Amino acid sequence: MTAPQEFRWEPDAGADPTTYTYTFGGVAPVASIRPGTLLSTWTMDCFGGRVRSTSDMASEVCDPRLLNPQSGPFYVEGAMLGDTLAVHFVSIEPRESWGVSSTVPFFGALTSTPMTAMLHTSLLERTWIYEIDRAESVVRYLAADTPFTAALPLDPMHGTVGVAPALSEVRSSLAPGDWGGNMDTPEMRAGVTCYLGVNVEGALFSLGDGHARQGEGETCGVAVECAMDTTVILDVVRGRPTAWPRIESDGYIMTTGSARPLEDAFRIAHHQMVLWVAELTGQSAIDSYQFVSQTALTPIANVVDTAYTVVCKVPKSVLGGAIAMDGKHAELRRKAASWHA
Amino acid sequence: MTAPQEFRWEPDAGADPTTYTYTFGGVAPVASIRPGTLLSTWTMDCFGGRVRSTSDMASEVCDPRLLNPQSGPFYVEGAMLGDTLAVHFVSIEPRESWGVSSTVPFFGALTSTPMTAMLHTSLLERTWIYEIDRAESVVRYLAADTPFTAALPLDPMHGTVGVAPALSEVRSSLAPGDWGGNMDTPEMRAGVTCYLGVNVEGALFSLGDGHARQGEGETCGVAVECAMDTTVILDVVRGRPTAWPRIESDGYIMTTGSARPLEDAFRIAHHQMVLWVAELTGQSAIDSYQFVSQTALTPIANVVDTAYTVVCKVPKSVLGGAIAMDGKHAELRRKAASWHA
Amino acid sequence: MTAPQEFRWEPDAGADPTTYTYTFGGVAPVASIRPGTLLSTWTMDCFGGRVRSTSDMASEVCDPRLLNPQSGPFYVEGAMLGDTLAVHFVSIEPRESWGVSSTVPFFGALTSTPMTAMLHTSLLERTWIYEIDRAESVVRYLAADTPFTAALPLDPMHGTVGVAPALSEVRSSLAPGDWGGNMDTPEMRAGVTCYLGVNVEGALFSLGDGHARQGEGETCGVAVECAMDTTVILDVVRGRPTAWPRIESDGYIMTTGSARPLEDAFRIAHHQMVLWVAELTGQSAIDSYQFVSQTALTPIANVVDTAYTVVCKVPKSVLGGAIAMDGKHAELRRKAASWHA
Amino acid sequence: MTAPQEFRWEPDAGADPTTYTYTFGGVAPVASIRPGTLLSTWTMDCFGGRVRSTSDMASEVCDPRLLNPQSGPFYVEGAMLGDTLAVHFVSIEPRESWGVSSTVPFFGALTSTPMTAMLHTSLLERTWIYEIDRAESVVRYLAADTPFTAALPLDPMHGTVGVAPALSEVRSSLAPGDWGGNMDTPEMRAGVTCYLGVNVEGALFSLGDGHARQGEGETCGVAVECAMDTTVILDVVRGRPTAWPRIESDGYIMTTGSARPLEDAFRIAHHQMVLWVAELTGQSAIDSYQFVSQTALTPIANVVDTAYTVVCKVPKSVLGGAIAMDGKHAELRRKAASWHA
Repeated sequence: MTAPQEFRWEPDAGADPTTYTYTFGGVAPVASIRPGTLLSTWTMDCFGGRVRSTSDMASEVCDPRLLNPQSGPFYVEGAMLGDTLAVHFVSIEPRESWGVSSTVPFFGALTSTPMTAMLHTSLLERTWIYEIDRAESVVRYLAADTPFTAALPLDPMHGTVGVAPALSEVRSSLAPGDWGGNMDTPEMRAGVTCYLGVNVEGALFSLGDGHARQGEGETCGVAVECAMDTTVILDVVRGRPTAWPRIESDGYIMTTGSARPLEDAFRIAHHQMVLWVAELTGQSAIDSYQFVSQTALTPIANVVDTAYTVVCKVPKSVLGGAIAMDGKHAELRRKAASWHA
Repeated sequence: MTAPQEFRWEPDAGADPTTYTYTFGGVAPVASIRPGTLLSTWTMDCFGGRVRSTSDMASEVCDPRLLNPQSGPFYVEGAMLGDTLAVHFVSIEPRESWGVSSTVPFFGALTSTPMTAMLHTSLLERTWIYEIDRAESVVRYLAADTPFTAALPLDPMHGTVGVAPALSEVRSSLAPGDWGGNMDTPEMRAGVTCYLGVNVEGALFSLGDGHARQGEGETCGVAVECAMDTTVILDVVRGRPTAWPRIESDGYIMTTGSARPLEDAFRIAHHQMVLWVAELTGQSAIDSYQFVSQTALTPIANVVDTAYTVVCKVPKSVLGGAIAMDGKHAELRRKAASWHA
Repeated sequence: MTAPQEFRWEPDAGADPTTYTYTFGGVAPVASIRPGTLLSTWTMDCFGGRVRSTSDMASEVCDPRLLNPQSGPFYVEGAMLGDTLAVHFVSIEPRESWGVSSTVPFFGALTSTPMTAMLHTSLLERTWIYEIDRAESVVRYLAADTPFTAALPLDPMHGTVGVAPALSEVRSSLAPGDWGGNMDTPEMRAGVTCYLGVNVEGALFSLGDGHARQGEGETCGVAVECAMDTTVILDVVRGRPTAWPRIESDGYIMTTGSARPLEDAFRIAHHQMVLWVAELTGQSAIDSYQFVSQTALTPIANVVDTAYTVVCKVPKSVLGGAIAMDGKHAELRRKAASWHA
Repeated sequence: MTAPQEFRWEPDAGADPTTYTYTFGGVAPVASIRPGTLLSTWTMDCFGGRVRSTSDMASEVCDPRLLNPQSGPFYVEGAMLGDTLAVHFVSIEPRESWGVSSTVPFFGALTSTPMTAMLHTSLLERTWIYEIDRAESVVRYLAADTPFTAALPLDPMHGTVGVAPALSEVRSSLAPGDWGGNMDTPEMRAGVTCYLGVNVEGALFSLGDGHARQGEGETCGVAVECAMDTTVILDVVRGRPTAWPRIESDGYIMTTGSARPLEDAFRIAHHQMVLWVAELTGQSAIDSYQFVSQTALTPIANVVDTAYTVVCKVPKSVLGGAIAMDGKHAELRRKAASWHA
């Protein structure tokens, strides 16, 4: 196998922030990529780098219309409606030695929000700065009100990964849905392949919202946000549509659902998994329903975004050697290995 | 340490099924237990043993008013309103070499139900029988419509664990809530301690609904159901109320929430965890909110019962050595070890 | 037609409040009633009369375990599982010249609650006293912080009407469900007949929670609460089960659904209406679905109780003269008229 | 008062359907309108006129990407971010003597959908044709499976009314939200004024989805759909932002909320009403919360679209003569009257 073609694209952190990409759809591609290309880029943090110390409050230093900038969109040559875009994450590495989290007024799972509208005043707004120690592979948390500290495992991932939506819609990078977007699942880490259904010619792939780590649910709405150096291989699985984003790791196949209420996100993820396992193992739908009921892991991804996201995982070890997506994950894994060598 | 006092109680499988316990509250205790006692018992499967082959359909052989029989209730001496009942699971072992699962008309997460009422006809009703192989520590699944088979890890647990509810309510053993009940979380396995707030004198503890294993979400509504041989130590943490059931394992503290919609179950579990971590680490609530947001695991337990259940888990390794519930888990762990020895 | 037999029962307002009825199920009947009897009684307000001025705060003067006392339960002779209890409201009249409303910490639709758990502090607790002017048929509202006042139409109703639940459950009078209970719909006014499915011998009917009026949704959780003088006729429709409470007025047939999330309450109410209209008009289910889709009114009842309630109303004028429930409403209407005469 | 300037715009029903407007945002305006102009237009039905008989099935004759065409968008001169667009409906009249409704596979409130994903097969797809009799002011329903018929009051309205969304989003005309869109409330009838917050210069107003009538909830997902002749006056309330669409009639002020789950739509509508009533009457927020709790009517609009919509109505008669939106409704009412004369 020959090493993949490489392509580098960088956002211009010094440009006018209004020129960044804040939507899936509605933006002209920044580059055209041949399938199989190894794309290396970096992504700004969700605040566009504007929250840098514990005295920076997001509600003061950020324009609410300019949150969660994405790197892209990338036009993938030959990707057509009815195909699936395969995004293999070769590496995801924090770009700086610090990350940031915060509470944001009327945003998060344990607060009134504009959609779960109540008469409360907002919770306290606060910013926490984490040290990212790549040598020790930890992020260091410091409580603000007491001396409590903790070292948490570094586990870099992308909160936002997606393509242009269907129906000519243009969606904010704060929203998740069947186009991907702001799913905020910690499963989106290096080593996995994300499958996204193509809705428009060229797919128009973007990514952003790097997290040094996050808890499942992203409860306060903000993870350990950081700029991220990321390398992916973009490829196309032709003639195979994908209704909702899927992820494959070496050990698991995973489906996602993004909806409100949260049980509908659960239903989508499990419905997709029942269909996928039936296809992979040749089982009937009702048998697959039974089988998934006994084998699924079901971590919550986020309960804070415009839709909530649930992941359903089934271990490959129980699937009798079935191969998903024509073996695309293994193929891209090998391709990535050849590049690292 | 002296070995704990032992007590054995057995349900009468040959009795009239209308005499079994099907509620939390509303039933006279079957025995009175001194705190610290090692209680050994067994529990019938959720169908009361009436679904025994692939030709037995639950809707035909079971009375819908006589589902999910519980062993108990047990009156725990000295347990008072404002205390917490600690239930340490010493061992949970399938009693037979088979388990059963099924689809049940209008019950489950991917079907219309009486509460999510629609105009569809019911999905196909079917029963699957699993071989439970304790030597190999697996359960063996056989698809009905194709030759597909799989060996799945044996992971015994109790779906239903609880006490009498507050407000003089009597709740069906099919319902989960702040009294525990039918939470259907695979975290309720041997080695953990479950903490339940006491609502009435004597707590009135029952358990049942053994599962040889289940997936997270219990999607079709029925796990690998089986009769279970179970040993617990019952103890009381005095003067410490517990609003929602909690679980402690050697590695994790866990909270639960049971509600609809599912995001409210999430909110309860995470709200409880924020309060608990604040108490254990001395952090302020807002710092704890931040900390839990980055450290929680959040597996879904069930999306099929009268309320849905979510679990929130935080690893003890990040809590700086904090001790939960006055060290009751470690104490009961040691007590259990002394008994085994 | 001979006038109906009359029966009077009164709660003992001077008794120990712990002796009142606070549940559906779990309480011995206070009297046995022959079907067709005209039962006259009165009901305490939801606070048991303990909030009487703007300086009485419910959280201070009320025991949270002793809220919403019911008059009853009444054993209705001959009512059996599979029958329907018909409750015709002959008159509902405020007993005093004042009513009370309040905000209650962590209760209501626009506040965090124990089930929609958040980290906010509670909203301001406040009590409002309304003058009930029966001569003018209004209740008079006085704002607390400004001189604003308004006279609102008097529209007396019962928030809580129900029977003992199925599955041997005992439910708090704060909860609504398929047994009726705390539905909090303003449609439960004089002149209507409420139909409740019988779950236990004698039905065990209770009622309470009189409101001089309420808005649809009962947004803050508390209506214009008052003690109520009420007369009903209790009757039995034999051999006709009723899955969820229904209401019939001179102009409308109505179904109710009580569930969370609110769309499930909607689904239950509309599913029941589709089935009912199909039965009454002889239409197929799919035609009835179409017909209800164009003819239903759908006011929200409450979004504050342990389940939320939605009402579906279809005008009799479009039903081609169909007669519901064997004409029981018209029969009881006539019976009531004969009594008044 | 001089009669308003008039402007007529017509869609080209003979054009390539891909050229129609199917989104809010993302489309160049078809015309520029001076505030105060009386705009007369007509709108195609939601199927673009392609479902014309009981043998036309929407899933066969319609392209799912080409549903719910809108007339517009209209650029309103001088409308700026922070202003409110006032849309006064002068007349809404069915253009033909027939309307159409249908069941659509996996769409509606009493069926599994792609978001409430289940394993059921779809309900029966069927089309119903209604006669629209403007002389008698009724629509005539014919059941398909039995001879049942009914004449239902004609009550023309627009299901879809909106402006370009915020955050550079482009949203399908099937979606409702804070930009308006597919709210599907029968309150949007002739004689009311709809207030929409302006998100982009010129507002970019569109409307469509005429209904000869609909039930509250639009249960099966499709009303009595018809092409509509409609006249509106477009005007701007400067310097007054509107967070969620509001409606004013001669008798009521109304707020809307569109979200999932349905209780969040309720919360938004009631939260907006509490704020609005407080502003109009000078009451504090907590007094207004109490007042709205006793005075609101709360009909459900739709439980079928991508978000569900709830309306909150408070009668002007209890507001002490308060004037909303600087009296814009009365002003436009007079303007409309002068035109009719």
